Amino acid sequence: MRTAFCVAAAASLLSPVPALAQQAEAPPTTASVLAAAGADDWVVLPQEDLFYLFLDAGPVVFEVARAFAPAHLDNIDKLTEAGYFDGLAIVRSQDNYVVQWGDPAAGSAAARAFGDARQRLAPEFFRARSGLAFTPIDSRDAYADEVGFVDGFPVGSDGERAWLAHCYGMLGAGRANEADSGSGAELYVVTGHAPRHLDRNVTLLGRAVHGIERLSALPRGTGELGFYEIEAEQTPVLKMRFGNELPVTERIRLERLRTDTPTFESLVEARRNRVEDWFADPAGRIGLCNVPVPVRTIGE
Amino acid sequence: MRTAFCVAAAASLLSPVPALAQQAEAPPTTASVLAAAGADDWVVLPQEDLFYLFLDAGPVVFEVARAFAPAHLDNIDKLTEAGYFDGLAIVRSQDNYVVQWGDPAAGSAAARAFGDARQRLAPEFFRARSGLAFTPIDSRDAYADEVGFVDGFPVGSDGERAWLAHCYGMLGAGRANEADSGSGAELYVVTGHAPRHLDRNVTLLGRAVHGIERLSALPRGTGELGFYEIEAEQTPVLKMRFGNELPVTERIRLERLRTDTPTFESLVEARRNRVEDWFADPAGRIGLCNVPVPVRTIGE
Repeated sequence: MRTAFCVAAAASLLSPVPALAQQAEAPPTTASVLAAAGADDWVVLPQEDLFYLFLDAGPVVFEVARAFAPAHLDNIDKLTEAGYFDGLAIVRSQDNYVVQWGDPAAGSAAARAFGDARQRLAPEFFRARSGLAFTPIDSRDAYADEVGFVDGFPVGSDGERAWLAHCYGMLGAGRANEADSGSGAELYVVTGHAPRHLDRNVTLLGRAVHGIERLSALPRGTGELGFYEIEAEQTPVLKMRFGNELPVTERIRLERLRTDTPTFESLVEARRNRVEDWFADPAGRIGLCNVPVPVRTIGE
Repeated sequence: MRTAFCVAAAASLLSPVPALAQQAEAPPTTASVLAAAGADDWVVLPQEDLFYLFLDAGPVVFEVARAFAPAHLDNIDKLTEAGYFDGLAIVRSQDNYVVQWGDPAAGSAAARAFGDARQRLAPEFFRARSGLAFTPIDSRDAYADEVGFVDGFPVGSDGERAWLAHCYGMLGAGRANEADSGSGAELYVVTGHAPRHLDRNVTLLGRAVHGIERLSALPRGTGELGFYEIEAEQTPVLKMRFGNELPVTERIRLERLRTDTPTFESLVEARRNRVEDWFADPAGRIGLCNVPVPVRTIGE
């Protein structure tokens, strides 16, 4: 009777159930939408767009958003190729906020060299909305006039500009007070309620698509802002690589539901109007960060 | 230089900084609002309204919402007095969703007896809005026509009804498909992005005010819905008690910022318009679950 006292599932859509015999009139559920999805509704994520963080516990994989942060990702390409991240550490876990990793010696004489990479980059806090395949969703968003998805990423817009939104699992480039003080050498991932007040204030560049629990369940740091107070509490970063830099045996093959299809629109509606038996009073409404974009391992 | 690459702090308001010399014209910040708060802006939380979950790692403390879930809390009073929870276990941790505890044998012949407590309760999914000291906040909420705070709790309303909102840290009573199948014997706490689609679908009854990291950083369960697959993965619940049932030495004295004061309104505005140096483009907007209600230990 383990399931007798559940609150309704959020993540079960990540493991789509087999197709069910459905009545033509049955309103869609997350499970039925995914069961009915065809091969064209999914996109295989190219290894060059997957950024792997290797920990003792295993890899965390991020899909990167080159349309939003090309300069930061180019810099990270250079840092990664030079092995900059290898042997660094997770330095911070702040409850209901972020996990952050980078060079514990950053800013001191012992800091790692950047090699060909740049130490400061112009901010990529937003870009033009035009030129994006933007799929809006009907949602009364607290922080943006318009919200929706671009290539699987949650996005806000004011009509002219578009920006990645700080939903759970989003990957960003830490910075100091100056807007151009980020470089991609210090990274964070959102591990709590979406801190949307950070939108347009920091460069986001990707989203966790595999293994985020290896970050989100880390012990919280007890120092200010969740920094670990002693070095032994830090989690070592074994290495960071883009997938195309990895031996084939270390790659994880993933596909993601496309967000520019009628299937995705049906998924959003199924999330808006939950018709599963458990729901007594379906919301009829949906928030941007409550639309999880399904990702699955190929061949499992 | 640990702080050189921070994303801005969310939790620092839990440790108010000493009062700063301020210009009269300086717009408020979270720190300045809390520094200027007087004794009347805080309320000492009565021990009979604090519900303690004791783990090997230490206590997690919840403030309970008797105005919203009186029947469930009365039932939990009975269960707690009878020692029902003592020796049970945390059975589930689902990433970006909930942590849940109760009787691993629930529903089987080995299930614990409820004694004088009830096995099923009428739902307390919402109540009348009238009769509440409701402090609305100006926010375009995705899930409710109106949102605000009542006695420190985040609340949604449609004008007639009011309900507790599933923000991070909220405590609820799990149930099966039938609306009256909850009892308070199986409890969950929100440990991810606010699952607001659960609002009005399950009885919420409190909010974590101390030690939530002892739940949110637990390893995620690898079974369906985040249930632990083997008993050894479960975390023992040593005991659960209301504060007035505890020896004084085990009590934690807490005070919470009142949410029906001009000080709280200033805090909301400071969160809406972040004027700290770090912010390049303050949102000018605020979401209900992004207003943390400060709680502090008395005498520290």
